[in-house]
Amino acid sequence: MNGATVRSRTPLTEALRDIQAPVRERLELVVTEMQAIVSSELPMIESVSGHLLQMRGKMFRPTLGLLASEIEGAPEARAITVAAVIELMHLASLVHDDSVDHSVLRRGLPTVNSLFSHQVSVIMGDFLYARALSALVALGDLELLRIVTRVSGELTMGEMQQLAAVDTLSFTEQGYYDLIRAKTASLLSAACETGALCGGARHSEALRLYGERLGMAFQIADDILDYTEDSTTTGKPSGLDLKEHKVTLPLIAVLPSLRVAQREQVERLFATESPDDQQVADVVAIVTDAGGIDVARRRGEQFAQEAEEALDGIPDGPARAALADAIAYVMERRW
Amino acid sequence: MNGATVRSRTPLTEALRDIQAPVRERLELVVTEMQAIVSSELPMIESVSGHLLQMRGKMFRPTLGLLASEIEGAPEARAITVAAVIELMHLASLVHDDSVDHSVLRRGLPTVNSLFSHQVSVIMGDFLYARALSALVALGDLELLRIVTRVSGELTMGEMQQLAAVDTLSFTEQGYYDLIRAKTASLLSAACETGALCGGARHSEALRLYGERLGMAFQIADDILDYTEDSTTTGKPSGLDLKEHKVTLPLIAVLPSLRVAQREQVERLFATESPDDQQVADVVAIVTDAGGIDVARRRGEQFAQEAEEALDGIPDGPARAALADAIAYVMERRW
Repeated sequence: MNGATVRSRTPLTEALRDIQAPVRERLELVVTEMQAIVSSELPMIESVSGHLLQMRGKMFRPTLGLLASEIEGAPEARAITVAAVIELMHLASLVHDDSVDHSVLRRGLPTVNSLFSHQVSVIMGDFLYARALSALVALGDLELLRIVTRVSGELTMGEMQQLAAVDTLSFTEQGYYDLIRAKTASLLSAACETGALCGGARHSEALRLYGERLGMAFQIADDILDYTEDSTTTGKPSGLDLKEHKVTLPLIAVLPSLRVAQREQVERLFATESPDDQQVADVVAIVTDAGGIDVARRRGEQFAQEAEEALDGIPDGPARAALADAIAYVMERRW
Repeated sequence: MNGATVRSRTPLTEALRDIQAPVRERLELVVTEMQAIVSSELPMIESVSGHLLQMRGKMFRPTLGLLASEIEGAPEARAITVAAVIELMHLASLVHDDSVDHSVLRRGLPTVNSLFSHQVSVIMGDFLYARALSALVALGDLELLRIVTRVSGELTMGEMQQLAAVDTLSFTEQGYYDLIRAKTASLLSAACETGALCGGARHSEALRLYGERLGMAFQIADDILDYTEDSTTTGKPSGLDLKEHKVTLPLIAVLPSLRVAQREQVERLFATESPDDQQVADVVAIVTDAGGIDVARRRGEQFAQEAEEALDGIPDGPARAALADAIAYVMERRW
């Protein structure tokens, strides 16, 4: 754990509560709508859905979508459904990601693949996605469908890119940005853009851009956490990315400037099928000492600033203020 | 191998060629369209797509869709894209099914999960589905989207139903029909209905029904084959369903009338984690001798007849004739 970055969790939970305040009641409706969309007579599906809705986390994407729908002060009713669809797509992609990665825990709870089976998680991801899209089709808005299906393609491309990376240590900073844009920023961006189309359509491009830059900052913050925080705060072991041979920004930033012995240590970790905790801790120390965390943080702040600039033309009000606060929240979150 | 059901393969291949004759050229365009829809800059995706398009089989669903679009003699150009989307959805579901079932072969070729990995097959199925839907969204027809997304839901429900079956020997004939309607008939039905909406809209309900009944007959014939044919014709081992503890119509039909000793033999197979060839052969013999194949064949013929009746109001012409021939083809196919 990096002492300099430790903050208590309470202020962040409060920060999230503040961000969600303008949309608190509608956020509850999103949960109800999600339940309605995935309801089924099959006990197995009900059981998996129940588990997933229980581990649904902070509902960050629906929060952004609802805020975006509210920037003109007149959100449309369908914003609820759209936000539910986006969150279900997010859940569907998490379920398949966990299955692909053989992950055991997600947000401190067992994953679908570990609690049920690999089979159930493949089918359940498909089910969530199919139902979410049916609900979106029922709204009858082709523009929303265009955004959402394009993002599905991007999400899977991101996953495949990550999986197919053969020589991960040759990964460039630009390659990293392309990857996190596809696997993370695309859906946050879609949450904001589709939300804007349900009440603030003339700002949909600005909010799409805001969501994308916020998503980049979000993922960079996440990748930094993997270097700085222990499992009690992230709900997953620190250094997990390194253990899984995933190269993220902190490492990419320092790779060219490492000394030969350090570079060799990094290469040894990537050549070891299951690196042990000491190997991981050593590389974390190398990256940190070489300034990788600092560089990554600066890049994250740059994206955060671009997200803020994207809000320039948005009308003042509680929704805009909350969207601005969401940027700070993303930069400081510890989960 | 059951001698009474063996027919040479050549007449069937010719039969398929005859069925496809009215749409032969457009069927080639469907292949080109499928390639265009899944094209990607990622080498891994190109490689998996190439493998999948190579094992694409008989293009039976696109054939039905194109024929349905041609019943008024004026098929719309978009019928090509719609047929490509349906076939890609079919491929996506096969890729995930094989991953769920850990299947090694499909149509005599290695499955994506065996040739690449479980991970690749999960992501690739998602990718095919996402791209197919994007292509459909681009056509801008909400009715088509409604049909296709509803079917996606049904396909996954069928898969989950099959997976979640705990006491499979209590499976009823009605339960079996519900299952095969969801997992097979729904997509053939959608192929016909969406095809009809691209050139013969006033017959879309009749063709939807035709496709559904054809699909029921199709799956029953498939399940019979598992009892009657060896691996050289099916491309997969005979009795595979029994080995995997899948209860299909031939067994369901005879279960209530089995003698105690026979019933016990069946139960032993279902209680054995990996039944050996002898156990499977014994149960195949029990089911065959008790008349299970004959009953299943009669039920299949009933659905085939209903498919034929659904064509009653369809204008005479080469497309209708080919759709009628497709029924006989389904009943006699050996692959």
